[in-house]
Amino acid sequence: MNELTGLVLLAGSSQSDTSIHYLSGFTAPDPFLFLRTNSANYLVVSAMEKGRAEKQSRPGTKVFTPAEIGLTRKQSGKMGNQIIALIEKAKIRRIQVPPDFPVGIFRALEKKVNISIAGKPVCPERKVKTKEEISKLRQSQQSAVAAMNAATALIGSAGIDRQNRLLVGPVPDRVFLTSENVRQLIHKTLIDHDCAGIETIVAGGDQATDPHERGHGQLYAGQAIIIDIFPRSEKTGYWGDLTRTVCRGRAAPDLKKLYKAVKAAQAAALRAVKPGVCADEVHLAAKKAFEQRGYETKETDGRHVGFIHGTGHGVGLDIHELPRVGTSGETLEIGNVITIEPGLYYPGLGGVRIEDTIVVTEKGWRYLAPCPKKFELL
Amino acid sequence: MNELTGLVLLAGSSQSDTSIHYLSGFTAPDPFLFLRTNSANYLVVSAMEKGRAEKQSRPGTKVFTPAEIGLTRKQSGKMGNQIIALIEKAKIRRIQVPPDFPVGIFRALEKKVNISIAGKPVCPERKVKTKEEISKLRQSQQSAVAAMNAATALIGSAGIDRQNRLLVGPVPDRVFLTSENVRQLIHKTLIDHDCAGIETIVAGGDQATDPHERGHGQLYAGQAIIIDIFPRSEKTGYWGDLTRTVCRGRAAPDLKKLYKAVKAAQAAALRAVKPGVCADEVHLAAKKAFEQRGYETKETDGRHVGFIHGTGHGVGLDIHELPRVGTSGETLEIGNVITIEPGLYYPGLGGVRIEDTIVVTEKGWRYLAPCPKKFELL
Repeated sequence: MNELTGLVLLAGSSQSDTSIHYLSGFTAPDPFLFLRTNSANYLVVSAMEKGRAEKQSRPGTKVFTPAEIGLTRKQSGKMGNQIIALIEKAKIRRIQVPPDFPVGIFRALEKKVNISIAGKPVCPERKVKTKEEISKLRQSQQSAVAAMNAATALIGSAGIDRQNRLLVGPVPDRVFLTSENVRQLIHKTLIDHDCAGIETIVAGGDQATDPHERGHGQLYAGQAIIIDIFPRSEKTGYWGDLTRTVCRGRAAPDLKKLYKAVKAAQAAALRAVKPGVCADEVHLAAKKAFEQRGYETKETDGRHVGFIHGTGHGVGLDIHELPRVGTSGETLEIGNVITIEPGLYYPGLGGVRIEDTIVVTEKGWRYLAPCPKKFELL
Repeated sequence: MNELTGLVLLAGSSQSDTSIHYLSGFTAPDPFLFLRTNSANYLVVSAMEKGRAEKQSRPGTKVFTPAEIGLTRKQSGKMGNQIIALIEKAKIRRIQVPPDFPVGIFRALEKKVNISIAGKPVCPERKVKTKEEISKLRQSQQSAVAAMNAATALIGSAGIDRQNRLLVGPVPDRVFLTSENVRQLIHKTLIDHDCAGIETIVAGGDQATDPHERGHGQLYAGQAIIIDIFPRSEKTGYWGDLTRTVCRGRAAPDLKKLYKAVKAAQAAALRAVKPGVCADEVHLAAKKAFEQRGYETKETDGRHVGFIHGTGHGVGLDIHELPRVGTSGETLEIGNVITIEPGLYYPGLGGVRIEDTIVVTEKGWRYLAPCPKKFELL
């Protein structure tokens, strides 16, 4: 026995997949098996995947097919069999699995091997990004900036009809501008930057007061339009995350005030960011900025209004990862890449969110990729 | 007590997410809770999601926030607490969870509630598509056809230089044609059809002999180029799946023979499709067609060559779902939507795969959306 304990991850859930990608360099569309011991990483993949797994995985990763660890085709259909055969091959005595490991396989294994649930996060080192990771994240964020510039230029160029509807295109072929049109332009711009955009939010007016509503239909002048772009690089797998809120034409004074409050809250939160600080303090700074301006967070007619979400989250191989910037008590460290994205949502008035992705640095923080903040597009 | 047993699903893994989407009509980017009893569906979502959940979920779905089932903010952070509070609210005695349910939450629950692992697939009815689902799947498949036509038109229009490299564009601005260029065109075409394409395969020559290699770099005349497009509708969540293999210019006789064998194998597999047939028979028909033509499936120099994957899989809210068309012994039924995609892969010669997505009908089958099959683009 070379090793005492190994960590087993099963590709198939987003979190495990990205941890395996992080630790081994390999990722695949179908479920496969990963084992980490103190001295090596092991992958068990189908015969079809073996060549690619060997090419893409980090040096020191041992790649096997089920047949190579002694399993027949029929035996290898059960993931439990693959795990048992692999830990025998790797000569380890005990395995740990993350809490999101499938209970069905856990149950089948616990009679046969020494298995337990890991108490700590599987891959806490993911929180602190290397220089190389920051460069990959920056590329994704730059593609978000390019797409945002394209989107705001389109909205800014729109004509306005008597019903305040936005129109685009040369005069004989003018068409109404919809959330879908803007989203298509964003996604095509991301493709030009080797990124994919999914579920991008372009939501105007009351649609924007529901932070997960993607937005649909006609866009209007005078309404706040939230644009939230989170591209994933097709090459590296790393994400970017960027939100701006714009208004074509003049905004009513109340809406302008709302925008200014969010901008001030973001600035306050950013001022609180530095290594060693509890991330909750950053969230509190945004919260305080809203309270000082009289913006309440409460329930009205069964709907939650005001500042109804956390201030931010880590970004990496997952779009939402550690550290959270909310109420979970995590401490910021140099190399964390986090979003700072306060927002206010009041049905009848509108929704505003401003989000940047930043790197925590020795002296405080810096933007991953700067992007202008402008509300009224006149 | 109204009910004896309820089924609990936790959003967060792709399979559970799409089953919840199927059963409740609701889907969200963050984890949430779903309970199905004989009489009702229940959702527990964050306050922020409540409005959208009520709008999007099917009639008869009861939507609660953690606060509405009596949990404080702190309590609701643990999913186990949400489940306990919900089954009390729904007045049920026992719950079942799917085998991929997270073991950590299962362990925390089993001391407090009567919980067991469901022995059968959670949502077997998903295999048989309704008319409405088939229409949604057809739309996604049609977008794949449009993107395929754009891709093959681009490759077919390419010039060829003395090193057999493909070139596109007007003469003064000619550029080399790469896998990435073709993939970008495919993805943009899908966006025009409200679909998203991710990990699309455009792989030529030896790259195409690894079925999961996406393809990169220069494309050449005379090589087999596999184009595998699987778009997901941004509106409905349903997928399409389509593969063609093309060759710009003349193909060598061996490669042409390889293409013809795959085309014949697909035709043989399609002939075997009808309701009541074991899907394994369909796979065997393709296998036999290859064997009759002398195409062996074997391991050479540690690489698996020949017909190294199954013949197909179900398509729906997941890109890979039941029924499988391979060796799992499932029976085809009217309303199954499956791919038929035999392929042959020989490093040094090339890879060929032809894939259509079809509906199993009373009389046999029909294409979801027809697409021409042409190998040499002259």
